[in-house]
Amino acid sequence: MLYLTGFSDDAGERPLLFIVPPEGPPRFLVPELYAHQVEEVAAFPPTHIWSDSQGPEAALREAVRGLEAERVAVDDDLAARAVLLLQNALPKTSFSLASPLLKELRMRKSPGELELMERAVAIVDQAFLKLLENVTFLGRTEREVARDLEAIVLEEGAEGMAFATLVASGPNSALPHHRAGGRRIESGDVVILDFGCRVGGYCSDITRTVVCGDPTPRMREVHRVVLVAQEEGVRTARPGVPAQEVDRAVRGVIARAGFGERFIHRTGHGIGLEVHEDPYIVEGNPLPLEEGMTFSVEPGIYLPGEFGIRVEDIVAVESGGARRLNRCPRELVRVN
Amino acid sequence: MLYLTGFSDDAGERPLLFIVPPEGPPRFLVPELYAHQVEEVAAFPPTHIWSDSQGPEAALREAVRGLEAERVAVDDDLAARAVLLLQNALPKTSFSLASPLLKELRMRKSPGELELMERAVAIVDQAFLKLLENVTFLGRTEREVARDLEAIVLEEGAEGMAFATLVASGPNSALPHHRAGGRRIESGDVVILDFGCRVGGYCSDITRTVVCGDPTPRMREVHRVVLVAQEEGVRTARPGVPAQEVDRAVRGVIARAGFGERFIHRTGHGIGLEVHEDPYIVEGNPLPLEEGMTFSVEPGIYLPGEFGIRVEDIVAVESGGARRLNRCPRELVRVN
Repeated sequence: MLYLTGFSDDAGERPLLFIVPPEGPPRFLVPELYAHQVEEVAAFPPTHIWSDSQGPEAALREAVRGLEAERVAVDDDLAARAVLLLQNALPKTSFSLASPLLKELRMRKSPGELELMERAVAIVDQAFLKLLENVTFLGRTEREVARDLEAIVLEEGAEGMAFATLVASGPNSALPHHRAGGRRIESGDVVILDFGCRVGGYCSDITRTVVCGDPTPRMREVHRVVLVAQEEGVRTARPGVPAQEVDRAVRGVIARAGFGERFIHRTGHGIGLEVHEDPYIVEGNPLPLEEGMTFSVEPGIYLPGEFGIRVEDIVAVESGGARRLNRCPRELVRVN
Repeated sequence: MLYLTGFSDDAGERPLLFIVPPEGPPRFLVPELYAHQVEEVAAFPPTHIWSDSQGPEAALREAVRGLEAERVAVDDDLAARAVLLLQNALPKTSFSLASPLLKELRMRKSPGELELMERAVAIVDQAFLKLLENVTFLGRTEREVARDLEAIVLEEGAEGMAFATLVASGPNSALPHHRAGGRRIESGDVVILDFGCRVGGYCSDITRTVVCGDPTPRMREVHRVVLVAQEEGVRTARPGVPAQEVDRAVRGVIARAGFGERFIHRTGHGIGLEVHEDPYIVEGNPLPLEEGMTFSVEPGIYLPGEFGIRVEDIVAVESGGARRLNRCPRELVRVN
């Protein structure tokens, strides 16, 4: 909705639907208490307004009139309450996801979009450096470190975080999607920091791995493999290369080092208005990369019961290859 | 999922589905990189694990085997990508929303749930008082005040915010769902603050209206009407009273004061693991209130181009009536 109208808000349980028919003007079903904001901000006016006491059903039936014979594609994130409401209003219509259509519009970022993303990336780069300088890790909980990091990101001028910050310490670092919890960071812990912010609606996303105290030789070895794999991924990405080739290049480095079974997620995801969007950098995606595409390259190695290491940068595909947007160091930094 | 399993995470675009058949054990479709967390935290083990390179389709077909003849109810917030995936796997099955079923389990809070909610409420109450003492409004942007407020809430011990903080100043206060933006607060502005946090997954939600400088007589008058309406709502709520009667009582006060057309949203929403959940306090909801139900009472009056005023407390229904969980002052406080 933000991409197509310039307006977006989380209307929660209240359906707020922008409907683009194959012909004729769009229809905009808006809860009464969002009508003002839509009028002021959106490129299209509300066409069907419903109030809390009426509910959305009657206004929706009006809004979809004439679309009965069509196929309808819905935002991949649209909530079930709106999907089923639409399906009830259009019982003979077949439904599909909108991402195959919308990704064609959204995957190649314009210079204006790239500028917002670079600002969002610069903020997380700067925040990481400030974190290293100013924040104590030893003896504090993951959650406390996450809060400090988020406070720095907001001070640096972000609109907000792009997702809940991950701080995974010690054995938790071997769980790729562990969030920040109550575990206290101990000397010798690996700590994975994964965070991102928004500027003008556009997202950044970065992962760095640090060590509280001195890294062991094994930590250094695994980190080196991840770094080399990440560099190989960035080097492989260029216009015309299928997305899955980048995944294969990264995975090849890790497999040859003997950790193939320990890289248990895809290499990356597109990023823009959503923190995860097309193109996905994953086996099975033959999509040729093009100039203007932006995505993460984020290999990781996860050793259950020991530790995990992940390094993530966002890159933008340009004519000559992929350019890293992140500029802060990727080394296995020691923190206190 | 959190309510039924003790585990929940935002797996983003990766389907993570807890499936409860009418008979037999639940099935738990889990992306590979969440499998560890599910095993450690959830009350049920993963039964069908899928990897990024395989995709979820085959594992899902296995997970729903034998459910073809059933009706399937899905979480109201389930993303369309998962709804359509389920519908493709079960093409002959009819789909409905799960809230009518789940609300019967979730609406009446247990003493343990209430305790978590009271802790979440105490944090926002305390944060509001600290905001009044420590934060400058004049000349600063809504977004800056929102960041200060969120920092205080997190310092007070919240797990996180329950939703994006609203700071609506001057004419923006007449837009009930305006978020915090770039407008600088001026002397004489009304400012609506609407925020909430989470403790143990459970939400709080509070709205207070303040004035930067001296309130006008009209601001005082409108605020007084809102306060009286809010008190009437709290007084009306008790076991056996239909939810819509609370809305009518609140609306009656505002209508008799001549502002009926300016109260453009429902009186309140249930609150618990979700910041908006059943019971909704709205015309058309005949549900009798019961002990243990928790919801907001939040009348507002919105004068376009001038200002708006809203006051919101969370109440818990007890045998003798509704008890306010919020304890901080509701007056039209002056800020600097």
